[in-house]
Amino acid sequence: MFQTFDSVSDPAVGKPRVAKLREWLSENELDGFMVPRADEHQGEYVPARAARLKWLTGFSGSAGVAIVLADHAVIFVDGRYQLQVRDEVDLDIFGIESLVDNPPSSWLGENLAKGTRLGFDPWLHTIGEIKALRLAADKAGMVLVPVGRNPIDIIWQDQPAAPAAQVELHPIAFAGELARDKLERLAADIARDGASHAVLTDPSSIAWAFNIRGDDVPHTPLALGFAILAADGKHRLFMDKAKFSLEVEAYLTQLADLHQPDEFERTVADLAKSSARIALDPALVADRLRMIVEENNGAVVEAADPARIPRAAKNKAEIAGSRAAHRRDGAAVVKLLCWLDRQIPGSLDEIAVVTKLEECRRQTGEETQMPLRDVSFDTISGAGPNGAIMHYRVSRATSRKLNAGELFLLDSGAQYQDGTTDITRTVPVGNPTAEMRERYTLVLKGLIGISTLRFPAGTRGSEIDSVARMALWKHGHDFAHGTGHGVGSYLAVHEGPQRIARTGTQKLLEGMIISNEPGYYKNGHYGIRLENLILVTPAEDLEGGDIAMHRFETLTLAPFDTRMVETELLTRDELNWLDAYHTRVLAEIGPMLDGEVLAWLEKACAPLPYQPKG
Amino acid sequence: MFQTFDSVSDPAVGKPRVAKLREWLSENELDGFMVPRADEHQGEYVPARAARLKWLTGFSGSAGVAIVLADHAVIFVDGRYQLQVRDEVDLDIFGIESLVDNPPSSWLGENLAKGTRLGFDPWLHTIGEIKALRLAADKAGMVLVPVGRNPIDIIWQDQPAAPAAQVELHPIAFAGELARDKLERLAADIARDGASHAVLTDPSSIAWAFNIRGDDVPHTPLALGFAILAADGKHRLFMDKAKFSLEVEAYLTQLADLHQPDEFERTVADLAKSSARIALDPALVADRLRMIVEENNGAVVEAADPARIPRAAKNKAEIAGSRAAHRRDGAAVVKLLCWLDRQIPGSLDEIAVVTKLEECRRQTGEETQMPLRDVSFDTISGAGPNGAIMHYRVSRATSRKLNAGELFLLDSGAQYQDGTTDITRTVPVGNPTAEMRERYTLVLKGLIGISTLRFPAGTRGSEIDSVARMALWKHGHDFAHGTGHGVGSYLAVHEGPQRIARTGTQKLLEGMIISNEPGYYKNGHYGIRLENLILVTPAEDLEGGDIAMHRFETLTLAPFDTRMVETELLTRDELNWLDAYHTRVLAEIGPMLDGEVLAWLEKACAPLPYQPKG
Repeated sequence: MFQTFDSVSDPAVGKPRVAKLREWLSENELDGFMVPRADEHQGEYVPARAARLKWLTGFSGSAGVAIVLADHAVIFVDGRYQLQVRDEVDLDIFGIESLVDNPPSSWLGENLAKGTRLGFDPWLHTIGEIKALRLAADKAGMVLVPVGRNPIDIIWQDQPAAPAAQVELHPIAFAGELARDKLERLAADIARDGASHAVLTDPSSIAWAFNIRGDDVPHTPLALGFAILAADGKHRLFMDKAKFSLEVEAYLTQLADLHQPDEFERTVADLAKSSARIALDPALVADRLRMIVEENNGAVVEAADPARIPRAAKNKAEIAGSRAAHRRDGAAVVKLLCWLDRQIPGSLDEIAVVTKLEECRRQTGEETQMPLRDVSFDTISGAGPNGAIMHYRVSRATSRKLNAGELFLLDSGAQYQDGTTDITRTVPVGNPTAEMRERYTLVLKGLIGISTLRFPAGTRGSEIDSVARMALWKHGHDFAHGTGHGVGSYLAVHEGPQRIARTGTQKLLEGMIISNEPGYYKNGHYGIRLENLILVTPAEDLEGGDIAMHRFETLTLAPFDTRMVETELLTRDELNWLDAYHTRVLAEIGPMLDGEVLAWLEKACAPLPYQPKG
Repeated sequence: MFQTFDSVSDPAVGKPRVAKLREWLSENELDGFMVPRADEHQGEYVPARAARLKWLTGFSGSAGVAIVLADHAVIFVDGRYQLQVRDEVDLDIFGIESLVDNPPSSWLGENLAKGTRLGFDPWLHTIGEIKALRLAADKAGMVLVPVGRNPIDIIWQDQPAAPAAQVELHPIAFAGELARDKLERLAADIARDGASHAVLTDPSSIAWAFNIRGDDVPHTPLALGFAILAADGKHRLFMDKAKFSLEVEAYLTQLADLHQPDEFERTVADLAKSSARIALDPALVADRLRMIVEENNGAVVEAADPARIPRAAKNKAEIAGSRAAHRRDGAAVVKLLCWLDRQIPGSLDEIAVVTKLEECRRQTGEETQMPLRDVSFDTISGAGPNGAIMHYRVSRATSRKLNAGELFLLDSGAQYQDGTTDITRTVPVGNPTAEMRERYTLVLKGLIGISTLRFPAGTRGSEIDSVARMALWKHGHDFAHGTGHGVGSYLAVHEGPQRIARTGTQKLLEGMIISNEPGYYKNGHYGIRLENLILVTPAEDLEGGDIAMHRFETLTLAPFDTRMVETELLTRDELNWLDAYHTRVLAEIGPMLDGEVLAWLEKACAPLPYQPKG
């Protein structure tokens, strides 16, 4: 299994560890220290070695920061984790604050005395983050003190070693462009930004640029490391050579000078001294790198990571790979849904479904000779009220039975070498209520609204987020998350900068893959989420049309549960889309199935009768 | 008439005037000077005295800036004015640049030599504008030099005097809140912003806060002046006392200390010296005021004009007034539409319609004892291809006949003491083509989409702009302007900060009035725009609804031309909205009409047959 069901945290760890950190504080003449969840690479997953926040506090969520002072400590988490954090940390040790409403930058001024010296590890905070914090600290008369070595690493006796999984090449059949050519393009972009070099700290960017994959963190095939790309083409890669086979090392040597990670800081410093103009992405790159460049009289050029947009806008091979991955993954999900449909209500629990789903994916991967490499995140398997918890993680302590009269929400994804998937379906267990069917249909209307949209080339995700919400709004509902996140190509299942959300300022460019996942959550009762991945693609020209338009191609292939659809709430156009989608699902997935699964799919994909209103 | 049809500009003015400005430049050791269209108040309309850009260049548009250097000169205008500017200025003297794609802040660096000394009048540029310009100038090694007296005022021999129209009180029946109470609220807001004083330079804010109106600029009932509001309630108003009757002066004296405008600068300086913390809105307030505060060791508090939000969110009396104004204005527009419908195609020109419309408004105003005070902007009266020019101003030189087979676009508004209106209707002259009817219906679908929307309280205008565009997008079209602008209460017809547009970051709050005006423009052929004003209002709770929702109440009352509606393109819900709107128009406007106009309206408001597709 790629997923565990243990209860991962123990609130008791906090007390002795915080005490040790306080000893270190007093020895080092600091009043406090900040411990974020991030590592040096600012990714969604961190290796065990970098799980400092969890080690110190017990909190296992994917975002948060603790501030430990001599006499008190607080942990900041966002809305998703307000309940979970209270189970996972010792509330005698930690106060809880909102990372959104009262983040450290606003909390500092009201809670710390003037003159407070607050330490932080500049490797673990971005340039932008520290800029904002420093402004707040200056205003409040406090001092932010970067430390040379993270005190957690000093006091954590059995801290795991850095991961060193083998690096593999990402074949050209899936990558679609030689690393040599990508690096040439990036070099030109760096020159265009007015820089001589760009530092990449995001392992997704490095994986994309060098056509390599690794296994250093859960669920995302990343090889942790750093790169310094140069406008003159003299690139450098900083990665533990223990990760390389002879072949991989030979390959990478053609593309860059290879260095051990411990040479990275010194190399940046040397470049800065030789009057390099070094591009750093203030939203991604650690403040430590800005310090090194500036302390050595180099020039910092603030510019976005040059790999972000080309990585996000997939090429033909990546798109073809994604389509194949979605057919395979759709077949696996259909097997699961068919199996689920045959179970007696009350006989299964959430963990059993996760286990079976992984088995379906493994089996389908083997059959199609494209094995399941990993799940793309811990499957969210939520029965009844657990479905209303947006980022629910099932453990043996929480696993519920799938009982009659309840809804079951299943949000999962896979990593195949040809593509990353992410799909959510919600199904009834026994008979759903009229209310459940109405809400399901409103969510489906939102998904169809995005699926059928045409929009001018250059439209931003923020401009179309409401399209997924309008039907819910009309009935007094909404959902408290964005409509869609970017998805990588055998890379991170949450990839920026593309997204469909209020905060989606990135233009939607041809080839970007995004999720389309409206939802409805009734706290304590049930949750509904429906999710397809979609691809930004040019819309065919229409007779009389004036401007270049884009539309979305739906990649995900699995039926929606038509027992949940209240056809009276659909327009004829919406119903036509649903029928056409099901026809396509059957045509593309059917040939991969047989026997009772195929029979089940044929029934699931049957057209719905149109029932016009009134 | 409140509107003229003269051709207002003469390109020949530029040459001698630019020559004089160049003499002044060399006498004052400057390499160049910036002449914006703005005055000290940054409003849409400027008094004749402040029309410096037009005087210097001939350009009569409502936005732009010229930069005059010793050997060349350029004028920057936006997309609306790219054609007009070429007719109005001497192209031997002025190069043309895009205010949007290559504004002065980016143009400077590429076009001026290092060390260039560029003069500007700090009264005519906002703090934010100069901040951006100064950054660009620093980067390019140039110097921005604020001047003490505007050179145009020195060389403009017959510059008109500042306007001094009589100030009138805005009655409490229309204002809905005593100025005393408004000022008390504002004082509390200023304290909350951490300031001791706030400087108001926007005459709309002063008019709203003091419940006064004036007549210093065209089409907007403003009395130009300044105010310094104080957290301690000791307010000051700087306005030419020649504008006050004894009664008005007595009234204002209860609210503030009255000063002549020439005491304003000194007063701000004195406050700064006495360690005041002075709130200035960087988007509205002249940079000169920042300079005065800082030169006198006062503290600048950057904060939004405290009157903006309370002015934008109308109270009960303002809403009641607006409803009454829209009934009256609707009756006037219906009279015009009925009259227009009886004319023989080819017999009328655009000016004749403008003249008749003003007559209808005057007559209806007199009948209802609420006279037309002004038009709220120059009526846009565009026949055939002129309808495709988004900000078309009809003059005797351009006025076209309304010919058979063409569309006619009429965008107009009125100023009544109880409210400001703004309405656009597009009608066919003779028989429209199938294409015209299709495009009209798509625009109407956009208007209905906004009209029927519900949205969570706190939604921003930017989030719903696409709702007005989706139907057009689906057919390959779009329109190159925002969906809606804020509208004042017997104040500016273009009022911020509320708007529905990609740039609409302001939350839509209860009581805000906004236009809903999607369009379609086929260059060289025809334009379609449909515009109602709408009011943000709480939506009644729905059974099972979870969150507080808002919706829009439509204020504007006049029929859409049902001959233009392709009912097959409407959903049943859309058609129901249209029929219900027409029923309401007839019920509210009908009682104000009789005879053939009433008969015409009854026919215009008849329900349409439903023709479901396929």
